[in-house]
Amino acid sequence: MKISIVVIGDELLLGQVSDTNSGAIARIIAPYGWSVEHVETVPDSAAAIVEAVSRAMSRSRIVITTGGLGPTRDDITVKALMQIFPGRLVENPQVLQNVKAMMQRRGLPLNNLTAAQAMVPDCADVIQNRYGTAPILLFHSGDTTVVSMPGVPAETEPMMRHEVMAALRQKYSSATHTLHTTLTIQGISESALAERLAAFEDALPQWLHLAYLPQASILRLRLDGNHTDGELLHGTHARALAQLKQLCADVLLYEGEHTPAMQLLNLLKKRGLTLATAESCTGGTIASMLTAIPGSSEAYCGSVVAYCNEAKQSLLGVQATTLAAHGAVSEPVVKQMAEGARKALNTDVALATSGIAGPGGATADKPVGTVCIAVATPSGTYTSTHHFGGTRTRIIERSALTALSLAIRTVPNILQIC
Amino acid sequence: MKISIVVIGDELLLGQVSDTNSGAIARIIAPYGWSVEHVETVPDSAAAIVEAVSRAMSRSRIVITTGGLGPTRDDITVKALMQIFPGRLVENPQVLQNVKAMMQRRGLPLNNLTAAQAMVPDCADVIQNRYGTAPILLFHSGDTTVVSMPGVPAETEPMMRHEVMAALRQKYSSATHTLHTTLTIQGISESALAERLAAFEDALPQWLHLAYLPQASILRLRLDGNHTDGELLHGTHARALAQLKQLCADVLLYEGEHTPAMQLLNLLKKRGLTLATAESCTGGTIASMLTAIPGSSEAYCGSVVAYCNEAKQSLLGVQATTLAAHGAVSEPVVKQMAEGARKALNTDVALATSGIAGPGGATADKPVGTVCIAVATPSGTYTSTHHFGGTRTRIIERSALTALSLAIRTVPNILQIC
Repeated sequence: MKISIVVIGDELLLGQVSDTNSGAIARIIAPYGWSVEHVETVPDSAAAIVEAVSRAMSRSRIVITTGGLGPTRDDITVKALMQIFPGRLVENPQVLQNVKAMMQRRGLPLNNLTAAQAMVPDCADVIQNRYGTAPILLFHSGDTTVVSMPGVPAETEPMMRHEVMAALRQKYSSATHTLHTTLTIQGISESALAERLAAFEDALPQWLHLAYLPQASILRLRLDGNHTDGELLHGTHARALAQLKQLCADVLLYEGEHTPAMQLLNLLKKRGLTLATAESCTGGTIASMLTAIPGSSEAYCGSVVAYCNEAKQSLLGVQATTLAAHGAVSEPVVKQMAEGARKALNTDVALATSGIAGPGGATADKPVGTVCIAVATPSGTYTSTHHFGGTRTRIIERSALTALSLAIRTVPNILQIC
Repeated sequence: MKISIVVIGDELLLGQVSDTNSGAIARIIAPYGWSVEHVETVPDSAAAIVEAVSRAMSRSRIVITTGGLGPTRDDITVKALMQIFPGRLVENPQVLQNVKAMMQRRGLPLNNLTAAQAMVPDCADVIQNRYGTAPILLFHSGDTTVVSMPGVPAETEPMMRHEVMAALRQKYSSATHTLHTTLTIQGISESALAERLAAFEDALPQWLHLAYLPQASILRLRLDGNHTDGELLHGTHARALAQLKQLCADVLLYEGEHTPAMQLLNLLKKRGLTLATAESCTGGTIASMLTAIPGSSEAYCGSVVAYCNEAKQSLLGVQATTLAAHGAVSEPVVKQMAEGARKALNTDVALATSGIAGPGGATADKPVGTVCIAVATPSGTYTSTHHFGGTRTRIIERSALTALSLAIRTVPNILQIC
């Protein structure tokens, strides 16, 4: 099943917020063999909405709109959809009750604008929004369904995952099987990897496809397949994947959709090890990547974001003489940071970064992008120096992902030594 | 000038990466009075690219494509565009030189795939990519221009800001003036604010428009205007803005496009004050928001991400008896965290968070979403308890933005007292 998405909102076209709903929907439908074939982003204009939804309906049997359902007057999605699906607005008692309960839970008074969200088109099926006040509407035209969802990701994602997906699966069933497997690669450029894999790619059947997804300092390699014969697909995909993993053995970090932070936490938990971080140039980014994951507190104890030298000394025990002799961005200092964090937070492993994210701070021998990383373990501390390109944000992201990658490569060896 | 964007890449439709280029382009063109009117996301398929670009050309005089320019075989944008703009591929010596220099700087060997990026259509104008190997191509069809840009944001954004914008402005000039002003609001719901502003909105001329942009725990209010008469636009916009600010005075956090983290750093720098953070439930998110800003080290000293109770005690001096009596998520503990961070990092101000981001960790009297925040200053420590809804990510984001908002409201009062 191919789905089209129409993303509605001036704020998206003005660049004030980014659309993350499309990606979330794509990830939710993938396990069912469904995929997104087209996304259009249009302004809060009835004409633009009607045009895009009509075009999407001619392309896909399922069309999902996101946004434009709020209580304010710039939200006009329902009005626009009623130009395609004529009907009249009627008060839906369940929606009204949901809106009242939602406002009460938030300690807010019910006002006319919020109450108006209970007025829904009589031609649409209604799904209660468990996370907000705007109901989800399903409009049907023969075999085609248009689903109108809110624009707030915290409402759209869980509602799509459960109630909306259940309603859509009841109406549609898929004949095509889809498979995606992702390998996370570190330590090779995209083009060098592509040269290495050229013959492998040539030998793939037309319904298996290799995609290169470069990220900051890591690269994800995705083997996609789709076929009506599920057995043939699974067998061929598995053989191709085994061959691919062999070809990438020296640069393969791990297999799976999950992030490097998740991979590191899983490795630590499996071995009963704990982790601390000491961050200078990454400024809390590694900590926030780790703590974004539910249950991270089982293995992750915390971080010292030592942005100034005083904090490096007082909280991590970095020696003034080492700072004076080598500068803050040096392997001796980052080694003391990692070892200091390991001691201060009483963990098995500690990861530390110190670098120049720019645009300021560069010296003659240490240009912007110079980053030192240390991994302290019970059996010793490993340090390395890297030179990253790009903007400040990019250098911070590359530093954080490289540090996590180095820890991922280090952790499996710890138990063998100690 | 209205611009259409065609975003190319299977990885976007699969939800493996999000499109941030469209937003960046929108923000870059806005000051010139230009805007994005439509964004389409299509797969790495020549037919889909040709269809979307042709449709965009019938809509806008400037069409920008992003993505599909990499060295690997799933990158087919140029081939697809040559179906619309026939020509032949010729080696461009400047591009070849750029590719060679780029690979050398990164310490990577030049291989055939990378070198092939120097083959460009003879019908296109070429702009050298200063941040990557794929050149930027401008195809002309009468008054319409199609610009093919890379998909990597770290290349697209700076190239768009400078070289591409210069080339486009040389060809096009705009007759319509545009103005956007953003107010950041905290402490009122979207619908309550909309009710309060209903009469104000009704009185606006048709060419002034108010948009509501809710974020986690804050809300941005944007007053947009466009008119061919620049003087009329500026005058009317300024009067409406003054009225709007008066109507929102009690909930207005600040004016401007910048983030709460930037606002707080600016306030601190202006007053010569320094800041530290102590983060439990926000896990480094406040630190990463602050350190993402160049020059943040002038005012921000660092953070203790005290994810486990041991770290709260050893690094921040939280008392074991306070933890035992009130639990980690309590105002007495978060007060000690903030005061401990202020002392340990020797700063004027410290901000601390402790809460339950979920999905685990809730107790009978402290449900998921309970978050305590403290702001320690030379004249005392302010604490508050909040109840946030939503997913783990959402609760972390709301906590971080609320903490920054509380600090923004506190800092201006510090100098008056001490």
